[in-house]
Amino acid sequence: MGLVKKPVTGMKDILPAEERLRNYVIEKVRETYSSFGFVQIETPVVEHIENLCSNQGGENEKLIFKILKRGEKLDLDGMSCENDLVDSGLRYDLTLPLSRYYANHSAELQSPFKALQIGSVFRADRPQKGRFRQFTQCDIDILGDPTFLAEIELIQATTTLLLKLGFKGFTVRINDRRILKAMAMASGIGDDKYSEAFIILDKMDKIGLSGVEDELLRSGFSKESVEKYISLFKKDEENKGPGYLLDLLPGEGAQAVGNLENIMKSVEACGLKDFKIEFDPTLVRGMSYYTGTIFEISMEEFGSSVAGGGRYDEMIGKFTGVNTSACGFSIGFERIITILMDKGFEPPIAKEKRVFLLEKGMNGENLIKVMKEAAALREQGISVLICNMNKNKKFQKETLMKSGYLPDEIIDFYHSDLRK
Amino acid sequence: MGLVKKPVTGMKDILPAEERLRNYVIEKVRETYSSFGFVQIETPVVEHIENLCSNQGGENEKLIFKILKRGEKLDLDGMSCENDLVDSGLRYDLTLPLSRYYANHSAELQSPFKALQIGSVFRADRPQKGRFRQFTQCDIDILGDPTFLAEIELIQATTTLLLKLGFKGFTVRINDRRILKAMAMASGIGDDKYSEAFIILDKMDKIGLSGVEDELLRSGFSKESVEKYISLFKKDEENKGPGYLLDLLPGEGAQAVGNLENIMKSVEACGLKDFKIEFDPTLVRGMSYYTGTIFEISMEEFGSSVAGGGRYDEMIGKFTGVNTSACGFSIGFERIITILMDKGFEPPIAKEKRVFLLEKGMNGENLIKVMKEAAALREQGISVLICNMNKNKKFQKETLMKSGYLPDEIIDFYHSDLRK
Repeated sequence: MGLVKKPVTGMKDILPAEERLRNYVIEKVRETYSSFGFVQIETPVVEHIENLCSNQGGENEKLIFKILKRGEKLDLDGMSCENDLVDSGLRYDLTLPLSRYYANHSAELQSPFKALQIGSVFRADRPQKGRFRQFTQCDIDILGDPTFLAEIELIQATTTLLLKLGFKGFTVRINDRRILKAMAMASGIGDDKYSEAFIILDKMDKIGLSGVEDELLRSGFSKESVEKYISLFKKDEENKGPGYLLDLLPGEGAQAVGNLENIMKSVEACGLKDFKIEFDPTLVRGMSYYTGTIFEISMEEFGSSVAGGGRYDEMIGKFTGVNTSACGFSIGFERIITILMDKGFEPPIAKEKRVFLLEKGMNGENLIKVMKEAAALREQGISVLICNMNKNKKFQKETLMKSGYLPDEIIDFYHSDLRK
Repeated sequence: MGLVKKPVTGMKDILPAEERLRNYVIEKVRETYSSFGFVQIETPVVEHIENLCSNQGGENEKLIFKILKRGEKLDLDGMSCENDLVDSGLRYDLTLPLSRYYANHSAELQSPFKALQIGSVFRADRPQKGRFRQFTQCDIDILGDPTFLAEIELIQATTTLLLKLGFKGFTVRINDRRILKAMAMASGIGDDKYSEAFIILDKMDKIGLSGVEDELLRSGFSKESVEKYISLFKKDEENKGPGYLLDLLPGEGAQAVGNLENIMKSVEACGLKDFKIEFDPTLVRGMSYYTGTIFEISMEEFGSSVAGGGRYDEMIGKFTGVNTSACGFSIGFERIITILMDKGFEPPIAKEKRVFLLEKGMNGENLIKVMKEAAALREQGISVLICNMNKNKKFQKETLMKSGYLPDEIIDFYHSDLRK
């Protein structure tokens, strides 16, 4: 009494059935990504507060769980603000810690380095259905490859995984930060206003192109710029790829268009079984660190994105002073688990299994007989659960069957039988 | 450049070779424990501060990483001590969160419930070689079984796992908190002095029986009590089990002796391949929550314990008001990983693999050919790493071989070959 039974706000206890599904999906993640040559690594869940608050994480930096300094370092009298009290926090994503890791260990790693990470991240978001304050991320990243081979491999690996998990009919939406900027620039929007314009553009899903147009005007962008800007998006309506922008964008923007075309052509040529890849000039992605290609996978069926990523060529340089090409793709692990659970998906049961129910008070010779029988079965790879019979054996068997045991997998052991 | 490259003090980045080993061991843990009917579950790494600081964790409560309150809850002006600032912290073990979990979910769980947990725990210990502030624990627990079947299954499962990992010649040392207390009581030590006596007894490994005798005397225990106490331990020198105590201890102590004998007999009867089980009346185990049997596994070869556990029948009652039998065994995961790495143990490589090295600037048709070939191999379960050739191809190949690729698994692709 006095102790709290519920988990802390916004975090969750995972029950056996969900854990079995999570382990199944993680196994598919490992199997698929390792077939693309990704190797798994880990960083601590605790990260330096300087790194977490370095403007890499955009909005996520407001959601950091901060950890109190310890011992003599904690000076309650001398402190004047929150940050005097803390020296570390829980990571809000896996990308920033990966960049630190690569900066710290690049001499010990292959180049390019293809990393797989599966781990918990933490964000103090307002709790709501399906959104948790501790959640699992699965990221793949290719560090040290400036070519679009990286993007192609990331897209191939992620789509292969989703297909293996039984998803289909999804769309890879792709854009490039440089195209976003070039389109704004070609419309006469000043570079100090890009962020503001992109935040409005990002609402396209909800308010449509005319909604974006209205909001841009209301926010004080000039009529001329807005008309030009909106007309550039309208030209995409036939959805024929970014080619139409080639002549309309200057320098970097046009290069990025060529690059996207190569990526899309390669992914298409390798076969688009059950999914599409589409240029989406309105794709923004929130995180501030992207520098080039950005992508997302959406499933109309579930009304949300299930994966996202992009190129962030400048983050590692923040640690080392020398920029290193980097590109990553992250699947929405919790989203995928929720969808599979809602679908009633059951991971296959790999093993044969038994329950041995022992009459109450069994001991000595009889118990040893039972344990030896169990050991022999376990040696053969069969899982054996040994329990004492409950008073209400019928209810006990029903519960066992609910958790996946078949009636003839449940075996009763009585003293009298064993004595024979 | 401002950002910190090293991980936070006392925590570590895990490189690919170690991660491969960790995954291999975790797979063995899952496989072995699930063959005993344990089912995996998870709790959040963040726990209520009230639960963490509830006197269940003994010394570990001094080592908690505390998390700052957020938003309006954080009142810097009104606070007078550290605990005004925090409402949660990082878990220091998996047992306390499991008890909370069981209290919260028992209606949804099988009874008895056999839980497997694999997860990170956090202790702000002084950093030293092989001891980390974030480390993995693997615990199995049986909740709701008051009989010694629980102890037997835990010992069988844990020893089976260690044997599968290639360890042998280890010793399961076993004792009972009730025997510890009864021995102290039979020697005339007052129950208010038990803890003090046990802290001294716990040094047996280092200072021997005569050292314990001296320190008890120096700490003010009466000569008569100390002589009686030490004589009880001397009687164990032939190592014939706890039977010799049956007539020397009153009530609960004698019951505990009978219980231990049953456990030891059953474990022995099921075959002691390559390990021993021994009664050790000097085994104390630090955590304050144990109420009955306690056990540890030591390996002389490595001079330390690699697993520990015991019965804690009163912790769940702290959450629910009704005591629930509980018994658990935890392996020293990090210790096991360190030993295996020091031994040079290499986990078997499950998969065939290839590296495709592409001549610089490959694109268009040729790239697509290569990607299709890779996709076909991956379909067959072969892992294919595609990278661009580095300028220093010799060095690149050497690095690849160091990370486990054989020379004939590395295949060069040139434009000219592909054009044919």
